[in-house]
Amino acid sequence: MSDIDVTAALLHRLADAADAETLPRFRRSMGIDNKRPADFDPVTEGDREAERAIRRVLAETRPDDGILGEEFGATGDSTRQWVIDPIDGTRVFISGVPVWGTLIGYYENGRARAGIMSQPFTGERFWGDGREAQRSWRGETAALQTRATETIEAATLFTTSPRLFKDEALGRFEALEARCRLTRFGTDCYAFAMLASGFADIVVEGGLQPYDIAALIPIIEQAGGVVTTTAGGRAEAGGDVVASANPRLHEAVLRIVGA
Amino acid sequence: MSDIDVTAALLHRLADAADAETLPRFRRSMGIDNKRPADFDPVTEGDREAERAIRRVLAETRPDDGILGEEFGATGDSTRQWVIDPIDGTRVFISGVPVWGTLIGYYENGRARAGIMSQPFTGERFWGDGREAQRSWRGETAALQTRATETIEAATLFTTSPRLFKDEALGRFEALEARCRLTRFGTDCYAFAMLASGFADIVVEGGLQPYDIAALIPIIEQAGGVVTTTAGGRAEAGGDVVASANPRLHEAVLRIVGA
Repeated sequence: MSDIDVTAALLHRLADAADAETLPRFRRSMGIDNKRPADFDPVTEGDREAERAIRRVLAETRPDDGILGEEFGATGDSTRQWVIDPIDGTRVFISGVPVWGTLIGYYENGRARAGIMSQPFTGERFWGDGREAQRSWRGETAALQTRATETIEAATLFTTSPRLFKDEALGRFEALEARCRLTRFGTDCYAFAMLASGFADIVVEGGLQPYDIAALIPIIEQAGGVVTTTAGGRAEAGGDVVASANPRLHEAVLRIVGA
Repeated sequence: MSDIDVTAALLHRLADAADAETLPRFRRSMGIDNKRPADFDPVTEGDREAERAIRRVLAETRPDDGILGEEFGATGDSTRQWVIDPIDGTRVFISGVPVWGTLIGYYENGRARAGIMSQPFTGERFWGDGREAQRSWRGETAALQTRATETIEAATLFTTSPRLFKDEALGRFEALEARCRLTRFGTDCYAFAMLASGFADIVVEGGLQPYDIAALIPIIEQAGGVVTTTAGGRAEAGGDVVASANPRLHEAVLRIVGA
């Protein structure tokens, strides 16, 4: 698919470094601070230490690359950039539910080329290294392949919360929900991993940051799926994002949720 | 807490039998049938085989007890009854998300006395054997203890979906949601396990069957929590059910969602 100079081994090394900081803190001492008291945006010590750990490995292995991280912002200046969410789904993390993930994406000239999602409590990894997308659990590895679902009426839809959408966007989401066979809430990044794995068909999320989606774009695309903004453009910069199991389904979804 | 003649060892033996049927089918061949095509109520081979496996162990170890199971109904006639949901959260099961569980409860004279929830993909168990409530993960065991959260404003609220509630019940749910610090959706039985574990404070669910809650009542109560119908009565028969981390919080929650 491409000749990027990132290997699956490097992706896993970065994820290992993060896991060593996140997993021991999950369901233990969480040290919740509150970045914005008004609307409760918790950030844990685990977020910060995981991003530090990933940055340490990158400083050793990829010293010339830039980094954009949720906790420590943008550093370096390069056409090659790592885009990191140390714990995507902090709210489920602090609520004990293992559908959060560490997201580590790799951009070349602003385009997502490789990425990994790690969920250390379940022992899962999902990754796309520019050549193929795979998942692993307890030592078993499987190729990722999205579903061939052709119609919205046959689709399973995921979103973190219907509360993400307001006004017209809520109307569009509800129109989509009304047509889907099955809708599930509450999954954060895990929903995109299920889509890439062939267990769900559509994921809609609102107001994403680049680091919320960076790692997931290559995983979805290299598994056969499509991910864009609701306006149909590339999703690397975040925003309102929709992913579908295949191009035909995506076209039908965009006709409903397209902004 | 009581002198019931059920042991944690028996609960785990029953859960082991179910796990052997559910886990190998999770994310593999699912053989989804459709009990009620009109509203998509999937039931998998895993559901049926897991209930059969549990019933086989009970036939050996507790031949005189009655059984109420989701898949095969009520059998036997005794003051001692096992109440079984072989896969609670079939919809998340078929969507690949490991927040479903096998629920095995034990009633004496209609009162829930012991129960276990098993989530074999994450490798977790949560149980109350009439004496104490515990959880285990990868060989680590911990006592379950609910939180001391005193106010709704400090509480984390879980429900499977806001779509569970209609009309007045929806209004009551939204009044509760508006006051809680954090609300998460999509968790099925897993939410009650998180409440018992001290990671969430309030769970509200609508329209439960007895087997959806039977196993969870002893786990919640023996961890220090409270679970009742929204009318404040015992929850053994299911219905609209609310659980809280402690009695004081429960009283405040019932004032809002009380039917």
